[in-house]
Amino acid sequence: MSIDAATAIDNSAATDLTEAEIFDAHRGGKLSITSTVPLTNKRDLSIAYTPGVAEVSRAIHRNPELARTLTWAERLVVVVSDGTAVLGLGNIGPSASLPVMEGKSALFKTFGDLDSIPLVLNTTDVDEIVETLVRLRPSFGAVNLEDVAAPRCFELEEKLIEALDCPVMHDDQHGTAVVALAALTNAAKVTGRELGQLRVVVSGAGAAGIAVAEILLSAAVTDVVLLDSRGVINSARPDLAGAAGKKAEIAGRSNPRGVEGGPAEALAGADVFIGVSSSKLDETHLALMNRDSIVFALSNPDPEVLPEVAVKYAAVVATGRSDFPNQINNVLAFPGIFRGALDAGARRITPAMKLAAARAIADLAAADLAVDYIVPSPLDPRVAPAVTAAVAAAVEAG
Amino acid sequence: MSIDAATAIDNSAATDLTEAEIFDAHRGGKLSITSTVPLTNKRDLSIAYTPGVAEVSRAIHRNPELARTLTWAERLVVVVSDGTAVLGLGNIGPSASLPVMEGKSALFKTFGDLDSIPLVLNTTDVDEIVETLVRLRPSFGAVNLEDVAAPRCFELEEKLIEALDCPVMHDDQHGTAVVALAALTNAAKVTGRELGQLRVVVSGAGAAGIAVAEILLSAAVTDVVLLDSRGVINSARPDLAGAAGKKAEIAGRSNPRGVEGGPAEALAGADVFIGVSSSKLDETHLALMNRDSIVFALSNPDPEVLPEVAVKYAAVVATGRSDFPNQINNVLAFPGIFRGALDAGARRITPAMKLAAARAIADLAAADLAVDYIVPSPLDPRVAPAVTAAVAAAVEAG
Repeated sequence: MSIDAATAIDNSAATDLTEAEIFDAHRGGKLSITSTVPLTNKRDLSIAYTPGVAEVSRAIHRNPELARTLTWAERLVVVVSDGTAVLGLGNIGPSASLPVMEGKSALFKTFGDLDSIPLVLNTTDVDEIVETLVRLRPSFGAVNLEDVAAPRCFELEEKLIEALDCPVMHDDQHGTAVVALAALTNAAKVTGRELGQLRVVVSGAGAAGIAVAEILLSAAVTDVVLLDSRGVINSARPDLAGAAGKKAEIAGRSNPRGVEGGPAEALAGADVFIGVSSSKLDETHLALMNRDSIVFALSNPDPEVLPEVAVKYAAVVATGRSDFPNQINNVLAFPGIFRGALDAGARRITPAMKLAAARAIADLAAADLAVDYIVPSPLDPRVAPAVTAAVAAAVEAG
Repeated sequence: MSIDAATAIDNSAATDLTEAEIFDAHRGGKLSITSTVPLTNKRDLSIAYTPGVAEVSRAIHRNPELARTLTWAERLVVVVSDGTAVLGLGNIGPSASLPVMEGKSALFKTFGDLDSIPLVLNTTDVDEIVETLVRLRPSFGAVNLEDVAAPRCFELEEKLIEALDCPVMHDDQHGTAVVALAALTNAAKVTGRELGQLRVVVSGAGAAGIAVAEILLSAAVTDVVLLDSRGVINSARPDLAGAAGKKAEIAGRSNPRGVEGGPAEALAGADVFIGVSSSKLDETHLALMNRDSIVFALSNPDPEVLPEVAVKYAAVVATGRSDFPNQINNVLAFPGIFRGALDAGARRITPAMKLAAARAIADLAAADLAVDYIVPSPLDPRVAPAVTAAVAAAVEAG
């Protein structure tokens, strides 16, 4: 490889994490409710509870619009999961998914200053989940779908968007896609290429993989080859020819060179590998890629290939983890996307809003661009405000 | 009257509340989520989110019991309403009920140190509400039902208790009943009578009225006459004879003297009036009560009779409001009842737990008993811990 990224890798932050430290931090959960009004004397009680609150309830009853400003609902994101595709851990169920959803809510608050609560469901039936959220609609202002398995997640997101008059986004699809596009924009720039020249392989045709392919094709990328557990996705594949569903649909719009076969065929001559499945990437396949290649091994907690291996072949390496550089983490996108949508009173999250978010993230890293700095740190306090502003502007322009 | 309570009434706390002050306090809602873990550096992210959180999720997947200690769910109360009987305002719908539910959650936190979220539903169908909470079961640890109209609230509470393996309580029934029993215990004491001697009239045979009658009958009171909009409730009444439902059922267990008629007949010779409907109490009817009478005018925000009128006839006067003395407010009961139930790992809230809570509340005021001090202040920091301990002890004894 011509650009040495090896020196950039510093995983000291996490290799020394102990089990005790992790479990101690999770004791009692990671969220807490606070009252934003004082409740220390009778006057406080008279204002926040009876008799004062009755005035507020009466006012909302007369003018339902007032619920937007006199309750927390309009700025409350529900983080909804059925626990069927949690991190890279698979279908571990709603209770086991709750720590992840609590973490998500903590991130919403810390980075987007949005209140958020986890709602984990012990049903995996799409219509039941939609029905549940329709019934709860007056309680919240937006839905962040999380860790729902493909292909059910596509149908669920579509039906929720149809049924609810508020922003709905499946973060594993679109949050990942937005940050991947931002990172790829800058990775191309730092290695001196245009998005339109790149041959991109996306490994994984689940929620994230299909959304990544979609957003790349909606940006300037033209050559995207998807891989699933059966190999390269193309329209001729017997299981996809004439089939319904997202995978069959994208088969007709990706893979313009008609690649067939498996990872070896896909990666031969490729410029970019984006891994969003838990399948491992063989070093022998990595070696087949073009020089100055770009490797995003985004599976959590275990990347498709470890950075110390990837850097032997790639010019730019990124993962989804906090403990390596170039962390392609949805936290760069979702707080600002939801905040921007809610600030602007959007009822939908549109493709234009997602592209605006990706551009804002990429722009923030542009000034200090380097192979180990293609996206801002998830902790960079400039990110959420910049994404918020870009998304709100896209709402207003749209 | 022989004991003058008039001097005790000081409503200065609330008569000067301004609309602006009330609405300003409600701007943006009254609740906020906070993260209990720091999220300021990469190490924090590695612990609370990826990769650390995966360890916690894996652990819960292997041993579901761990969700009790490694998530917030086990100490999270959902405050659930369909907005059909909000305060004394009636069926104003879920959105208009939300400020009340937010206030309730604020009280849960302030007094019981329990996290709590409002879930308001835009369905009033009992089975749909039950189904919704069954689906969300892994998200929470207890259900506080609130402001659901009677008689639907009875069926809803019963079905939820049946369907969920966690504490469920309709606070408008049982919270009110517990505090009313505590207050009556002390009002009897301060006026030198025994509970068993009292003739009690309960005005209102909805959620609160029936629960108050039930708890009084389960304590030492024997003579309870219920009034609804059609007059005195008795087994002979054409609409109740042979009918199903809570009202017909309690008709057979209350009113031992077979009183018939309306408020005048009920109140003639009565010692106690407990108002939990929004119907007004005529001064002429008040005048028919025995000397040293006890008047609890609990309707919110507008009491059945104003204290300045009631004190002309009664020895002890109480209301549900923060701005008068003797505030019979559920906040004395529900934080400690839920906290005690959750601390002790109870799966049900039993009659014994409610009686224990009433006794704990009454005992706290016993040392300083006076006509204007029959229950502790809702702001008294001793209350929730005492109720918690009494309820937990009742669980362990049960």
